[in-house]
Amino acid sequence: MGDLSEASARAPKQDRSRATRRRLLEAAVACLAERGWAGSTVAVVAEHAGVSRGAAQHHFPTREDLFTAAVEYVAEERSHALRALTGKSRADVVSALVALYTGPLFRAALHLWVAASNEDQLRPRVTELEARVGRETHHIAVELLGADESRPGVRETVQGLLDMARGLGLATLLTDDTSRRERVVAQWAKLLDEALG
Amino acid sequence: MGDLSEASARAPKQDRSRATRRRLLEAAVACLAERGWAGSTVAVVAEHAGVSRGAAQHHFPTREDLFTAAVEYVAEERSHALRALTGKSRADVVSALVALYTGPLFRAALHLWVAASNEDQLRPRVTELEARVGRETHHIAVELLGADESRPGVRETVQGLLDMARGLGLATLLTDDTSRRERVVAQWAKLLDEALG
Repeated sequence: MGDLSEASARAPKQDRSRATRRRLLEAAVACLAERGWAGSTVAVVAEHAGVSRGAAQHHFPTREDLFTAAVEYVAEERSHALRALTGKSRADVVSALVALYTGPLFRAALHLWVAASNEDQLRPRVTELEARVGRETHHIAVELLGADESRPGVRETVQGLLDMARGLGLATLLTDDTSRRERVVAQWAKLLDEALG
Repeated sequence: MGDLSEASARAPKQDRSRATRRRLLEAAVACLAERGWAGSTVAVVAEHAGVSRGAAQHHFPTREDLFTAAVEYVAEERSHALRALTGKSRADVVSALVALYTGPLFRAALHLWVAASNEDQLRPRVTELEARVGRETHHIAVELLGADESRPGVRETVQGLLDMARGLGLATLLTDDTSRRERVVAQWAKLLDEALG
């Protein structure tokens, strides 16, 4: 009996710990997107998440730990959402891929990249994270688009599409250019469809 | 005689003033690219340019004046360089367009955009500047590529190409991915050539 009640007490504690971690990660992405790297400290994120600073530092010893984990966490959430698109038309898949780069996750990631380009402590971790997330997104895109990478040029065609999506995300940073973006995406989805055969 | 020597004294003075202005603008772009917005003050740029702080403030009363003027100045220099490509092949033009987004000017502009997304004082000026530079680049791209925008989809094809170039620039921020970029550019130059007819 003693063991059982101990085990059931442990489970909710783990759940609470996981929930706290998730709240911190989501608050970190929101802070980065809204305030940029300079305005995003562990203390600001902890307050935003309604978590004590001590608890935040228990989960993430350094600021770099917190923010790279945050961008990775949200990127993984997005990957799961993307995989659910299996079976949709290429035009729908292209729209969904581009949408990945126009929301708060991309804004947050952009702030992290730009900060990393000038901060030696952050750069190696963000570079490694970006490479990993990029490979994963490419892999999912190839599957969803039904692209045959054994054919010459197909790999580069898909890569260029993701580069375009990233560029479209950058264009929305200062102004909402949704209607222009939708026209560009519709046209490039057509070009892509012809190229992939 | 008095008038003549006054005029000739005035001319070198204007030349000196123009040269000082140009030194400040070039130093501002270099500082932004290397140190980001947070590390780029008028004082840092003046020192970098070998100009007194008073002289810098005579040319550019505010920090915002200096940095928006700097990005605009270098963008204009690039536009001139681009126009010189008239008569080159589409593949060469695409390479040159993409190269616009992978050098220090793009790095500087990126820092300015990201800072502007969080700073109310900077945002309207950078938004206006970005729109103007974007229109100009699109206009030059259409001409150099011999693209007939009266045909449906052509405008969006060229816009998508410039978005892709911007995304490729962002990808080089943390790591030098020149060989990947060259393959993507070669493939999309081919697709673009087919699309533009």
